Order: sequence, then structure tokens, then C-alpha cells
Amino acid sequence: MDLVEKILQRDARSAARLMTMIENGAAEAITALKALYPHTGKAFVIGVTGPPGSGKSTLTDGITEELRRLGKTVGIVAVDPTSPFTGGAILADRIRMQRHSLDADVFIRSMATRGHLGGLARATNDVVDVLDAAGKDYVLIETVGVGQDEVEVVRAAHTSIVVAVPGLGDDIQAIKAGIMEIGDLFVVNKADRDGADRTAMEIEMMLHLGMATGGWQPKVLRTVAIKGEGVAELTRAILEHQAFLEKDAGHRQKGKERSRWVFRELLQERVTARVLEKVTENGTLERLIERIAAREMDPYSAVEEVLKKAGL
Amino acid sequence: MDLVEKILQRDARSAARLMTMIENGAAEAITALKALYPHTGKAFVIGVTGPPGSGKSTLTDGITEELRRLGKTVGIVAVDPTSPFTGGAILADRIRMQRHSLDADVFIRSMATRGHLGGLARATNDVVDVLDAAGKDYVLIETVGVGQDEVEVVRAAHTSIVVAVPGLGDDIQAIKAGIMEIGDLFVVNKADRDGADRTAMEIEMMLHLGMATGGWQPKVLRTVAIKGEGVAELTRAILEHQAFLEKDAGHRQKGKERSRWVFRELLQERVTARVLEKVTENGTLERLIERIAAREMDPYSAVEEVLKKAGL
Repeated sequence: MDLVEKILQRDARSAARLMTMIENGAAEAITALKALYPHTGKAFVIGVTGPPGSGKSTLTDGITEELRRLGKTVGIVAVDPTSPFTGGAILADRIRMQRHSLDADVFIRSMATRGHLGGLARATNDVVDVLDAAGKDYVLIETVGVGQDEVEVVRAAHTSIVVAVPGLGDDIQAIKAGIMEIGDLFVVNKADRDGADRTAMEIEMMLHLGMATGGWQPKVLRTVAIKGEGVAELTRAILEHQAFLEKDAGHRQKGKERSRWVFRELLQERVTARVLEKVTENGTLERLIERIAAREMDPYSAVEEVLKKAGL
Repeated sequence: MDLVEKILQRDARSAARLMTMIENGAAEAITALKALYPHTGKAFVIGVTGPPGSGKSTLTDGITEELRRLGKTVGIVAVDPTSPFTGGAILADRIRMQRHSLDADVFIRSMATRGHLGGLARATNDVVDVLDAAGKDYVLIETVGVGQDEVEVVRAAHTSIVVAVPGLGDDIQAIKAGIMEIGDLFVVNKADRDGADRTAMEIEMMLHLGMATGGWQPKVLRTVAIKGEGVAELTRAILEHQAFLEKDAGHRQKGKERSRWVFRELLQERVTARVLEKVTENGTLERLIERIAAREMDPYSAVEEVLKKAGL
């Protein structure tokens, strides 16, 4: 039986194998992803973002437990955006994986980027598709909310959860426009700390400032994830948002937005690779770079020349 | 006199105006950048990266003071990668700008990304070029080292400085392969804290593990930036690295690598925009996204179709 068949039959080891192929950029991965794609689109994707140390992993764990209690299967994709300084997370993930390792209906994958290889968002999307095709009801994507690509990953989820903690840059600036836009649910975690009221109030104020869009009213919730406090309420809020989307044709809309973004990310990667390949073959690339470095030609004109040659 | 002329005559207000145009994606910005480009390539670019709270800004300030003492002019580009949680930095920047505001030979610019607009790396490169053309001897780029694009920005500098602090994820994992590769200089800031020795030792161990490349031997320095301790030594190390590069043809090599990366970033942005434009005009894009969302077509096949149509 081939890899695709096995994944569709929910074989975790085969799913893990394909994920490794995706991360390594193996060509066979694309063939498998194409075959799996018609079987995707069923999973509900939840993005969780927040600064380092905000307890995203513990929250994600808590939500997973609640969803399991409801009989749902869960996939978790932990995006470790460049890993330079977030080393602690890797260890924590190992511990988490052990905790859930006896539960065949929870699958956790840490995405470590190789820095310069790029394509993090695209690879994350591919892994979400594998989990989706493997029959997971919910896929949680967890990422540090710093870095353009990383924020986009969460924006493209069905439900986006933004996690804050009291006292981390505790003025109104701490959560800024960019991230406020993407949140369907806001969580003040470690809410037993001083300043939790203030942080929650500041988020609520900013939400009211940006209001009047109609549709879903973002919620602000409080949790102490490490003690499990507020996690059931948060999970309920996720399910409410899911129901809201499904009732309101919002699910289809979000799905379409997600497809748009996935397509764009993939197009960007492929089209750049193809054009670079073309100009590399005949030596044009090196000649242009030499000229740019020597200040004989500016990068804008160089790119225009390449586009012209490529007939674009 | 036009904008380009004024910038070449080191007019700070004109430089600031062009930077705003760059951030807003104004078409006239490109014309100006093309005209400025032949006057660039003189500035020495220093990248400073480290986790939030590691004191990057204070260090950058300290280096700036030392360089000013040597009669050098300085531009600072503070990249605030998505700004979601690093709000504090903005306030701090304002204070810094006031501090240097009487010094016409220091120019500070904060780059705030608009999240989904993308192009952070490209815009940062453009701003560096403006500072370069405006006659700054040194350009310091300061960025949180999380996020693919953000790390790349620092990698593309002539001298890359990686800042760590004791106790932040204080096992050997804390500074991982990806970021170790890019550092020419490593700084343990807040070195008066417990664990500074251990952090420095761990970095040195990792450097020795990755050794034997020949060329520049990365250094590990200790600073207490807030008290100015070790900053003169750090600045001396930067100048040593600069001298090393210039002696060893490394400067030319780094310049070429920088050009390669700048070209790539720009190519990616432009080529994606052009192809998207083409498929949007005739309605292909919407049709493809509908089909992807409906799982009638997978994104890989959709991108292949577009590439084929574009003759790529």
C-alpha cells in the first residue's frame, strides 16, 4: 500500500514520513500532496500566536485536551520560526509529545526552519494538509507572533487566537494594529498575575476602536493555562466561532481566503525559483549580480531586465 | 533642486521623505532609488540581532557613540518586524531619536511593517541604500532575530552581530545553528548578570564545534550596554572585522553576497506581482482559487498551470 493510501487510512507514521519529505523539499512530496488534496478541506484550522513565554504551548495543550474530551481528533503544528533564541520550546515540545504519545488521535509536529531555506509558510500549509487528509478534525498551528510569515500563517487559520500576558510591554502599544486585525479571540494568559485587568481592558478598548465591521465580535478571555483555568471557556469560544462561521457562510469565505493565501505563497516560491533557474543557466544571473555589486546597474533595472527576458 | 540631489547633498529631511515613499510603495521611490544607486556601496553595513529585551537598541546606541567619537557618520535602521508584541521598542526609539536629534550626523529610522504588505527585507534594503547615498559611513540595522526575513536582513550585512543575554533559555539550545552561522561577533549583553560565563562558554563551544572554515574567527564579547561597559571593545572588534574584510577581498565578497540577496528579494516581489497581475486581469486567478477552495484542483497543479501560461 502506498504512502498516500496509508495516510488516508490515518496511519501516523506515514503522515510523519511525508512531513519529513516536505521539510526536506523532496520532489515526491509534491506528488503525494497532489493526491491527498481532494481529501482535505475538512479540518478546522486554529492559529495560536503570542510572544515567547506567553504560554502558547500550554494553552494549545489545554485546548487539545478539551477537544479530545469531545471525541475530536487533533493535529498540532508548532512553528518554531527561526529557532535562534527560542530553544527552550524544543525541549518543551518533546515533553508534550511524550504526554500525548499514547493518544493516537493527537499528532504533534514541530516545524524547524532551516533559516535561509525559506518556504516556512508553504511547508506549514503542506503539513496542515497532511493532517487534514489524515482525518484530524482540528489542526492547531502555534507560532511566535513575530515575523511577517509567521503572522500570516495564523491569519490564514479559520480561528485566530492572539495570546497576551500581563506586564509584557504593558502599555496600549503592546498589542498593535497588525495583530489586532487578525484576532478572532484574544486570550490574556497568566491572568492571575498583576496587571491582567489592565491588559484585558486595553485589548477591549482597542477592539472597540476598530469596531463597526459587523459580523463576528472578537472576544477577550482570561486563562491560567498552567492550572487549566479558563481553557474550557476558551474552547467553547472556539466552537462558537466555528458555528458562527458555518452558519454565516463565513467558513466558505475563510476557506477561500486561506486558499488564496496558500496559492500566493506557493506561486511566489515557484515562480521565483523558475525565473532564477532560467537566468542562472545562461550566466545572466552572475553577470547581473556583478554589475549590481559594482554599482554599474541598480537592482530595480536588473529585475526589470530579467522580467522582460522572461516575457513577463 | 530635486529629491535625489538633496539626498546626495546629505539633506536629512529629503532622505526621510524618500524613506516614507519607500514604505508606502510609491512608484516615484523607484525612480529616485535608481538615480541614487550609483552613489551607494560606500557605507559599511552592520547588522545587530537578538531576542526581545536583550538590549539591542542600547548596544546600537553605544556603538553609534563610539563611531561618532571617531568622526564617522551613522545611520540606524530599526526593523520592528511585525510589531505585534514589541510595542515598547517604539517608545524607546522615540527617546533615542530625541537623544541624537541634535546630531545631524546620526539618522535613525524605524521600519514598521504593515503585516500583510510584505516586502520588509526589500524596503529595509532600499532604506539602507538611501542612507548610503546620503553619505553615512556606517549603517546599523537592528532587528529582532525571529522570523525568516528578519534573520536574512542581518545575514546580508558586512558585519553581523548576534546578541545574547544570560538566563534566556540558558541551555546550549538557546543559540542554535541557524543564528550561529550568521554571527561575525557574538555579544553577551547584561554580562553583570548571573550565568554570563556560562552563556559565553556555550557560545564559544558551539563556535569551536563549527570551526575550521578558515578566514575570520568569530569573537565572543561581553557588554553591559546600559553602563557602556565593553562597548568600546565591541566597536573595536567591528573595525577589526571591517579591516579584515577589506584586506582579504572579503569586503568585495560580502558586497557581492549582499547584492545577490537584494536582487533575489526584489525579483521575488516583482515577479510574483507581475504574474499575479497577469492572471488577475483575465479572471484566471479567481477561477483557480475557487477550484482550490472547492478541492477540485490542488494548489501545486494550479501554480504549474499559471507558470505554463506565463511561458515559464
